[in-house]
Amino acid sequence: MNNFEFSNPVKISFGKGAIARLPHLIPKGSKVLFIYGGGSIRKNGIYAQVQEALKDFDVLEFSGIEANPHYETCMKAVDLVKKENRDFLLAVGGGSVIDATKFIASAVYFEGDPWNILLKGEAIKKAMPLGVVLTLSATGSEMNERAVISRVETQEKLAFSSPLIFPQFAVQDPEMTYSLPPRQVANGVVDSFIHVIEQYLTYPVDAKVQDYTAEGLLKTIHDEGLKVLKDPHNYDIRANLMWAATNALNCWIGQGVPQDWSSHRMGYSLTALFGLDHAQTLAILLPGVMTYMQKEKWAKILRLGEVVFRITEGTEEERVRKTIGATEHFFREMGLKTRLNEFGIGEKDLDALVEPVKRMGWKLGEHHNIDWKVAREIFTLRL
Amino acid sequence: MNNFEFSNPVKISFGKGAIARLPHLIPKGSKVLFIYGGGSIRKNGIYAQVQEALKDFDVLEFSGIEANPHYETCMKAVDLVKKENRDFLLAVGGGSVIDATKFIASAVYFEGDPWNILLKGEAIKKAMPLGVVLTLSATGSEMNERAVISRVETQEKLAFSSPLIFPQFAVQDPEMTYSLPPRQVANGVVDSFIHVIEQYLTYPVDAKVQDYTAEGLLKTIHDEGLKVLKDPHNYDIRANLMWAATNALNCWIGQGVPQDWSSHRMGYSLTALFGLDHAQTLAILLPGVMTYMQKEKWAKILRLGEVVFRITEGTEEERVRKTIGATEHFFREMGLKTRLNEFGIGEKDLDALVEPVKRMGWKLGEHHNIDWKVAREIFTLRL
Repeated sequence: MNNFEFSNPVKISFGKGAIARLPHLIPKGSKVLFIYGGGSIRKNGIYAQVQEALKDFDVLEFSGIEANPHYETCMKAVDLVKKENRDFLLAVGGGSVIDATKFIASAVYFEGDPWNILLKGEAIKKAMPLGVVLTLSATGSEMNERAVISRVETQEKLAFSSPLIFPQFAVQDPEMTYSLPPRQVANGVVDSFIHVIEQYLTYPVDAKVQDYTAEGLLKTIHDEGLKVLKDPHNYDIRANLMWAATNALNCWIGQGVPQDWSSHRMGYSLTALFGLDHAQTLAILLPGVMTYMQKEKWAKILRLGEVVFRITEGTEEERVRKTIGATEHFFREMGLKTRLNEFGIGEKDLDALVEPVKRMGWKLGEHHNIDWKVAREIFTLRL
Repeated sequence: MNNFEFSNPVKISFGKGAIARLPHLIPKGSKVLFIYGGGSIRKNGIYAQVQEALKDFDVLEFSGIEANPHYETCMKAVDLVKKENRDFLLAVGGGSVIDATKFIASAVYFEGDPWNILLKGEAIKKAMPLGVVLTLSATGSEMNERAVISRVETQEKLAFSSPLIFPQFAVQDPEMTYSLPPRQVANGVVDSFIHVIEQYLTYPVDAKVQDYTAEGLLKTIHDEGLKVLKDPHNYDIRANLMWAATNALNCWIGQGVPQDWSSHRMGYSLTALFGLDHAQTLAILLPGVMTYMQKEKWAKILRLGEVVFRITEGTEEERVRKTIGATEHFFREMGLKTRLNEFGIGEKDLDALVEPVKRMGWKLGEHHNIDWKVAREIFTLRL
């Protein structure tokens, strides 16, 4: 096991009716900015539930946070916070709304150009307190200190992290996910599955607690994921998926072990250039990373096959091949596509797709051996 | 899955040489009270390492915390804290030293008789900040908000909990456990194994993340536990056991699921009256609880047998019986005893042993169906 230092102070309020806890979780007398995305929370009743829970607070709203939230939109919220003296941010939504809220919380106090938090990784020294009402289970952002923001103007998508942006709390009621469109549910399943994979499918360092826990999350997300679209109002399935997605990226399973994240970093340009959903980019790229890096990931691919896909027959070579196939098949069963050509993306687009890896000089993966040339070969495998 | 609300803010600094982080983890300018047990840390070099790490702080020492720490000893430390204006408590030791430190941190500010924190469960409103250097891996106290204190005068052993007594940090270097006596190591293995059992071996509520994680911890503690006494300087074994013991009782696996804790509560009197080690009391009582409550715990005993002890053959009745036997056998392999008569405790002692359950009116177990009469039958099974 490798050395690590970590803490995660987020308070989780989980279960049916957890929204009733909201007024007790926000500090009394707070001037709240209630941040959300589009109109879906007005249709499914969550907006009304939040309004009711906030009735004793001074509340303003900011809506219109996009999927892959825009820097430009966040900066409008920053202006509103300053103008209206808000002192608490409440994110009501999924990963995009939460990530945007984390950036807003950071940019408000930042001296200098807030874009440098993302572009240059400049450290923030202070952030506004924030809380979450989770409506979409996928990114784990409700219980971590990370955020990903896109800039429309420059077609960039960049991440930052700071212990100052841990939410103070996350209200997680699985029933709030009943009315989500199937595509968002499927994306959440694949996204959270691959979050675990990025921290698990590397090379063994004999970290038994982390490996067993990761395998439990993968089994849960796989098995419940295959059921959820057929049985969308099943509380236990929703609860297991929601809690698994949170644990997939609350960063504990990644402590003391190598991490990959190459599928994530390579996938950003597929979203920026072609507008693919984040999970969709991962479903395309992960089988490529597994194929290209199979020698490096050999032992863990064999374990993944055995534990999650029950692949125990055949030579090691056969089991590795079958496991990569089963992983791609799982994403297709969830309704996602797994090839670039299914989106009309071809050979001609490869240079543009690896351009960020080249420009940023990234060496991706747990061995730091995926430069832009290797990335191009991995993209090529997924044509 | 049941509803829950929980957070755990403890910062873990884990790995070889983690002691070097100590001066950065304690707030600058703190007036530290360095609290420890007996002389073992002077012999194994940990005392010197802590002294070196604290060289820029104003430090006083308080030693002599006992196993099953005494209220009377803690109150002497409380006097010292007040007299010498200490503002930070550093516990260097295992569960006993940490639990004592948590109680000291609470009693310093308590208005009224501090014994009532334990006896009447009176809530504390403030506690001193505390940190931990862990030298013995067992109780999980380094990452939770609980403590157990004994009062010599009245032969009582009582627990309390409060979010205010979470340590601010725990420094966990697996190498610090190399020189522990085998009996303490074995006790730690059994104690942490049973901590998981208390939160796992109840009845299923379809909480997949919690169950898989608990099973991973049980496998880790079982498999590494059987190796550690033969290979005491193996870093990976020590690291896996240390991290498993922390996760066994940092309270996350117990969120959203029923919990038992009857073996713990019944075992207190074995320590108070006969001086048995805490883990030793659990090794005796758990097989009794499993036998008496097998109908209630049926499905989970079958899973425990399959996952941890690889018991997959035979009828359900046979597998349940074998699993209870394998559990007791594991404790004996670790060198613990599992019968009351091995300590000269017999029929004549039963009334005294269940007296606390009777006096406190406890209804123990996940179904609250273990009163003093049932407790007496469980003790009888363990004669």
